[in-house]
Amino acid sequence: MRFWWVNHKQTWRQEIGGEYLWCPKEEKDGKRSQFYDNVRNARRGDLVLSYASGKVSFVGVVLDNSISAPKPVEFGNRGEYWSREGWQLPVSWTELPQPVVPKEILGQILPLLPEKYSPLNDAGNGNQKAYLAEISNDLFDVIIAASKMDRDVLDGVPDSPIDLIEDTLDESVENAIRSDLSLSDTERRQLCLARKGQGTFRKNVKDIERACRITGVDTSDLLIASHIKPWRSCQSASERLDGNNGLLLTPSIDRLFDKGYISFDDDGNVLISSRLSTDDAIRFGLRQGYTRRTFSDRQKFYLEYHRKSVFLP
Amino acid sequence: MRFWWVNHKQTWRQEIGGEYLWCPKEEKDGKRSQFYDNVRNARRGDLVLSYASGKVSFVGVVLDNSISAPKPVEFGNRGEYWSREGWQLPVSWTELPQPVVPKEILGQILPLLPEKYSPLNDAGNGNQKAYLAEISNDLFDVIIAASKMDRDVLDGVPDSPIDLIEDTLDESVENAIRSDLSLSDTERRQLCLARKGQGTFRKNVKDIERACRITGVDTSDLLIASHIKPWRSCQSASERLDGNNGLLLTPSIDRLFDKGYISFDDDGNVLISSRLSTDDAIRFGLRQGYTRRTFSDRQKFYLEYHRKSVFLP
Repeated sequence: MRFWWVNHKQTWRQEIGGEYLWCPKEEKDGKRSQFYDNVRNARRGDLVLSYASGKVSFVGVVLDNSISAPKPVEFGNRGEYWSREGWQLPVSWTELPQPVVPKEILGQILPLLPEKYSPLNDAGNGNQKAYLAEISNDLFDVIIAASKMDRDVLDGVPDSPIDLIEDTLDESVENAIRSDLSLSDTERRQLCLARKGQGTFRKNVKDIERACRITGVDTSDLLIASHIKPWRSCQSASERLDGNNGLLLTPSIDRLFDKGYISFDDDGNVLISSRLSTDDAIRFGLRQGYTRRTFSDRQKFYLEYHRKSVFLP
Repeated sequence: MRFWWVNHKQTWRQEIGGEYLWCPKEEKDGKRSQFYDNVRNARRGDLVLSYASGKVSFVGVVLDNSISAPKPVEFGNRGEYWSREGWQLPVSWTELPQPVVPKEILGQILPLLPEKYSPLNDAGNGNQKAYLAEISNDLFDVIIAASKMDRDVLDGVPDSPIDLIEDTLDESVENAIRSDLSLSDTERRQLCLARKGQGTFRKNVKDIERACRITGVDTSDLLIASHIKPWRSCQSASERLDGNNGLLLTPSIDRLFDKGYISFDDDGNVLISSRLSTDDAIRFGLRQGYTRRTFSDRQKFYLEYHRKSVFLP
């Protein structure tokens, strides 16, 4: 378990109310940010202190891995310079019995701040560039103690509905498709069927792929037509229905691929995430680097997205 | 591929219009019926001649295995003595260019009729007891030729939405739950979440089961809380939420269990359907008779239903 500290920007109400964190994938100049990468690094069960307006008022437990997701609509005009697509991390927040103002206990806090990528400067103010910063268990405990919260409250991860963010995003995309009058009835129907890997999309994938690339299963009703670039992230109708944007996978392999636990390199080698335990990899019959078949150029285009935005390194 | 002949009863319009066959599981006196068992025996890709009112007017291709399903509501008062639960088989029907009256070509047909379980008697009338009868390829071809249909039309199985019947039944159960005013909001919500293996049901299953009984995977977000007695077939809210009515399974094993390709005996031994190829069984890591752990009495109660009404022998 790791401990984190988030310096919310102008969207803290939306993030607390919506039970998540959201950040762009990069700085506005295109540079990598350790603070944004940390949203990708956080895992189910990690604990997060929520800092805004000079005080820590909430503590959260991470419910699942982050996913690539559009900027939440409830942000409105806030963060206009942020990219449209970012990382979203589901977090269950609990209000502290007593908010903690770091400046008031600076003597305790200063020696515990990380040397690099610290959320606070030496004066106890939030670092301008910081978003999600890793902190030590000791610093976390100091803040929780000052808040008068019973530490036991934080034991155990709430068993929330799985894939809550994914389902919510999918629903909003589906609603947009259903009300898009520039599409014909048939197009709307096929685009919605594609969400579940059905209809035209499935047919298109079957024209290209014959069997599950990991298990070799080729029995139709045991295979899912799985999007490489997720349905919700596609930029157009043609991406959503493109047979090159799909693989036929058994349900377990589909799940691993969809959750970013596995991906493929361009030569068809399996990539296994460090987040999947060796035991589980064996149980699912995975072998690192196992090659079944190479990919077409169109498939490689989508796989690049998968490796960058779905796969968990 | 096998060939079948159905003598519709008074529900032929519903069965043709709804793209299925439906029959009770047993005779009204509780006796087994070969004609009803045949609905269980039919498989994807099999061809069916539809006979009603003295003529064969449609030919159908079986889209999927049959499932246990309530008597279709569109039957209304027809077949009132039939049991509430029966077998439903998805079939895609095509009208013949010219209906065929068997009596008019009785000379050709008689020698090709099966000796046992024939759909017609020697006078060319439908046998009273017959429902789905197996016929020879030769008899099938005689009828198709007489109908002036191009036999090639029947090549290939339409790629229809998978699990169409299951989804339709689930939807109608969910609508009933949503409009059941005898339930509280929370109950309605939990019953609907249970359909997807979420919420209270999942929590209840996790109190009893720890890992997938086949693969041993114990990572929560890679496991589905799967109903043993299907959600749609449960008789009460308590059955739908009962943790003893669930197993934690990886998505592929969940699919095999849900589609009746595997089940368990009371000692925890895996049963593998004859419909699953040996190749696929190996690809999914299945071993006949492999025991992980025995079941509780409450689990055995639900497993008996699964073996009888879901498992494909």
